[in-house]
Amino acid sequence: MTTAVTDELSLTFAALADPTRRAILTRLSSGEATVGQLAAPFALTQQAISKHIKVLEHAGLISRSQAAQTRPCRLEPARFDTVAEWIGRHRQAWHERYDRLDRHLAALADADLMAGAEAEEET
Amino acid sequence: MTTAVTDELSLTFAALADPTRRAILTRLSSGEATVGQLAAPFALTQQAISKHIKVLEHAGLISRSQAAQTRPCRLEPARFDTVAEWIGRHRQAWHERYDRLDRHLAALADADLMAGAEAEEET
Repeated sequence: MTTAVTDELSLTFAALADPTRRAILTRLSSGEATVGQLAAPFALTQQAISKHIKVLEHAGLISRSQAAQTRPCRLEPARFDTVAEWIGRHRQAWHERYDRLDRHLAALADADLMAGAEAEEET
Repeated sequence: MTTAVTDELSLTFAALADPTRRAILTRLSSGEATVGQLAAPFALTQQAISKHIKVLEHAGLISRSQAAQTRPCRLEPARFDTVAEWIGRHRQAWHERYDRLDRHLAALADADLMAGAEAEEET
């Protein structure tokens, strides 16, 4: 894949496509943490973790406080909402389509039954 | 990023990190389509579309019928459910944490009010 990833949703999905980054997000879903705290459970250097954090920040999934010197990271729920909305829309379209198909098949089955009953009445 | 993408969820998110692949999924959310039908709205060769379809198939987001010679593609809603579940869990953890924080701050404010009222009664 050499296509440049530029649009927001692609950036977000690409950032989520890594188990270490998802583990960082899971940690942050229970509260703010500094880079040092985030690095602790991983067999990774603080530098490697910092790279992952930059990817997550660039993707809008987390933000870093400007206030404290340790600049703790926090989850940005708005981007999670965007992803949930995209996924939800596609699930819903699929389900609505298959619900319609079910109703259509049920209507066809009813029509068959009625046609059968009418045919029987006529005989 | 040189890390090999091997786990299922990473494969799925990586597959979603491309606007053409998301457009293919959007098309499939309204019903099955052949590779030719999927290629039509894009300024891409059928070969390029086939590559995207292989990525989506490998990621479990779509499947291809073995029955017909045209092997139409269809959405696999189960993988959408997995992604929705992961995203939903993190949103929920975040919201629960902030709801708890709100309740805690409200309790602190109430305690302050009561302490204030008691202090006034004593004077």
